[in-house]
Amino acid sequence: MIGFEHISKIVQRTDAKIVLFIMDGVGGLPHPETGLTELETARTPNLDRVAAESICGLSDPVSPGITPGSGPGHLALFGYDPLKYEIGRGVLEALGIDLELKEEDVAARGNFCTVDDQGKISDRRAGRISTEKNQELCQLLSKIKLAGAELVVAPVKEHRFVLLLRGNKLSGELGDSDPQHVGLAPLSVKKLSPAAEKTARLANEFVARAKEVLRSCHPANMVLLRGFSQLPRWPSMNEVFKLSPAAIASYPMYRGLARLVGMKVLATGSTLAEELATLRQHYNDHDFFFLHVKQTDSRGEDGDFQAKVKAIEEVDAHLPDLLSLKPDVLVVTGDHSTPAALASHSWHPVPFMLRSRWCRPDRVKEFSESACAQGAMGRFPAVEIMPLALANALKLDKFGA
Amino acid sequence: MIGFEHISKIVQRTDAKIVLFIMDGVGGLPHPETGLTELETARTPNLDRVAAESICGLSDPVSPGITPGSGPGHLALFGYDPLKYEIGRGVLEALGIDLELKEEDVAARGNFCTVDDQGKISDRRAGRISTEKNQELCQLLSKIKLAGAELVVAPVKEHRFVLLLRGNKLSGELGDSDPQHVGLAPLSVKKLSPAAEKTARLANEFVARAKEVLRSCHPANMVLLRGFSQLPRWPSMNEVFKLSPAAIASYPMYRGLARLVGMKVLATGSTLAEELATLRQHYNDHDFFFLHVKQTDSRGEDGDFQAKVKAIEEVDAHLPDLLSLKPDVLVVTGDHSTPAALASHSWHPVPFMLRSRWCRPDRVKEFSESACAQGAMGRFPAVEIMPLALANALKLDKFGA
Repeated sequence: MIGFEHISKIVQRTDAKIVLFIMDGVGGLPHPETGLTELETARTPNLDRVAAESICGLSDPVSPGITPGSGPGHLALFGYDPLKYEIGRGVLEALGIDLELKEEDVAARGNFCTVDDQGKISDRRAGRISTEKNQELCQLLSKIKLAGAELVVAPVKEHRFVLLLRGNKLSGELGDSDPQHVGLAPLSVKKLSPAAEKTARLANEFVARAKEVLRSCHPANMVLLRGFSQLPRWPSMNEVFKLSPAAIASYPMYRGLARLVGMKVLATGSTLAEELATLRQHYNDHDFFFLHVKQTDSRGEDGDFQAKVKAIEEVDAHLPDLLSLKPDVLVVTGDHSTPAALASHSWHPVPFMLRSRWCRPDRVKEFSESACAQGAMGRFPAVEIMPLALANALKLDKFGA
Repeated sequence: MIGFEHISKIVQRTDAKIVLFIMDGVGGLPHPETGLTELETARTPNLDRVAAESICGLSDPVSPGITPGSGPGHLALFGYDPLKYEIGRGVLEALGIDLELKEEDVAARGNFCTVDDQGKISDRRAGRISTEKNQELCQLLSKIKLAGAELVVAPVKEHRFVLLLRGNKLSGELGDSDPQHVGLAPLSVKKLSPAAEKTARLANEFVARAKEVLRSCHPANMVLLRGFSQLPRWPSMNEVFKLSPAAIASYPMYRGLARLVGMKVLATGSTLAEELATLRQHYNDHDFFFLHVKQTDSRGEDGDFQAKVKAIEEVDAHLPDLLSLKPDVLVVTGDHSTPAALASHSWHPVPFMLRSRWCRPDRVKEFSESACAQGAMGRFPAVEIMPLALANALKLDKFGA
């Protein structure tokens, strides 16, 4: 696989436009009665028409057999090797709720939990308290003052929150306070490098104060922290690929991931129609667009086969609107599979198609798992998609003379 | 490719059972009269039925174009990158005759050879003496006493034997005494690191004493040693994959390879029927079984196309017995190809199929080279089989959030 050091030397800025259209979790598993997956069941004349004009295949986001989280799944699509570019859990959680992170901020994933009279954890999730209760408690914790740093305590969902420490000379190289098992007391946060001494002190002070504040809030009478991390410093897509990339996504997590690789995040609405309107509006301002649809994944996560079929059909119905922009390169794929049968992300490779004037179409006439398995791309790592898209946009010079 | 450091963090122990069924050397080449390989010629209704319910492909044990020995071929199947996990020649030879190696033992591959009056090698294989003669000479050599180590001299076949040195502070970092050419004198064994000084002295002492013992045994009047090595210290399959693995193989080499990665070797008979009885008997005691059939390779090595066809049909006839155990994940493949037309191992990729409730079957309906080339796995490195099998057993958590 070609690396950034090579690709950045041969890539050229041009006017050609690339649209990376991600149907989150699009891959599925066959329905036991029909033997057809969600995508194979859905009526998708527009996707199929694109497939007939595309080169198709099945891509592995991380590696065969590996089920990717949203982070690794998207990084691979953006051309970043997900085994090399890892995101800390705290940062990912912050991205997921649209918290804007500054460069030195340290983020941690927090759980409200229950401790007994001896201070031992009896429930790591505090009985999954309501999100409303969570919001209320986060307001209480936000009043804590620490010497040497500001803090943000932001609710996520149920028992989950994000802690941000903001100040000078902070470091994310810290151990967890969450021992991951009940019956144990929370751990003190340990520095994993000398540079993290101050941050460890701040984190432990926060935990001690949180314990006081929550004393009477049973079952949410304590907090657990894990995945301390800072924004990674990665080369941007502009630096590596000489692109001016923009992201159109209605869910915070995907906007956050796009920011990590230097995309401009465009404000948009929550429907695909609104996302497409945003794309049309900004079409002249960028040469790369990451366009994200969440519903295909959500209905898969719900375990609702028919609803996922319907979500796919809705995407198909909007496709002509996207095609009318005539992008020079159109990629349609997912960041992973989310079969309704598993009601979760899975390891199954993802249907992929790329259409351009220069793509050399194969014989695949249908956008589906079975059809793409016969495509000329074969089965390949998703991290190879970006170089292929750049090539089809005629943005890559020859490698070697 | 995902490494052990990642996979060991996301793997979970579950009750699901994986059977890795290896038809040694199963891949072949077309018969000139029919254009069909051994596997395509054989009548295999049971293998074909499994193929229809499987995800299929063609795997490369090491890398395209590379013909694997039994060691690398099997290590890849066990999930160990054969370019990284190398086995010394002496150790491999010892495994092949079921010699039990202790941790500090040093093993060398030995040849009986012929030297002339000037002590120069005239035949590196001593005219391929009979195995009976070899056994007799090994008994003589076994009587040699060395100061500071015990020794084992074990016959293999024809001119080949294994020398084991057993003692304290031994090292396998030694050069060969075998100069690999006739007309030269045997080399003295050189230490390749300071730690091997004692072992070099022992090896040279053995060679000098062997020369005396064999003085009157022309043509086998000298020995050559090469491939000095010790048991490698590798992470076990239990450490890496959280499996309790067992091996069922009637040939010593494969039992030895299984031991290297920490499998429990189950006593079994020499036929597939007996191996399957062993599998049934121990089915509740392990969650991973490596089941090995040798005949497919042996008949290929014989260069006997029809006999290999028959060996494949015999395997097929026994398959229902294996299927009746209903393993959660069944993998059927080979460790390499052994086309009768070449009468040897070859570099051709190996037909592969994996069946599980979650495998997302492709359109392949037949277990053969041509059919598997159309499978959804495409062409892939064999070292990816283990992660895929673990995923299909639902033993792998998500990678990244």
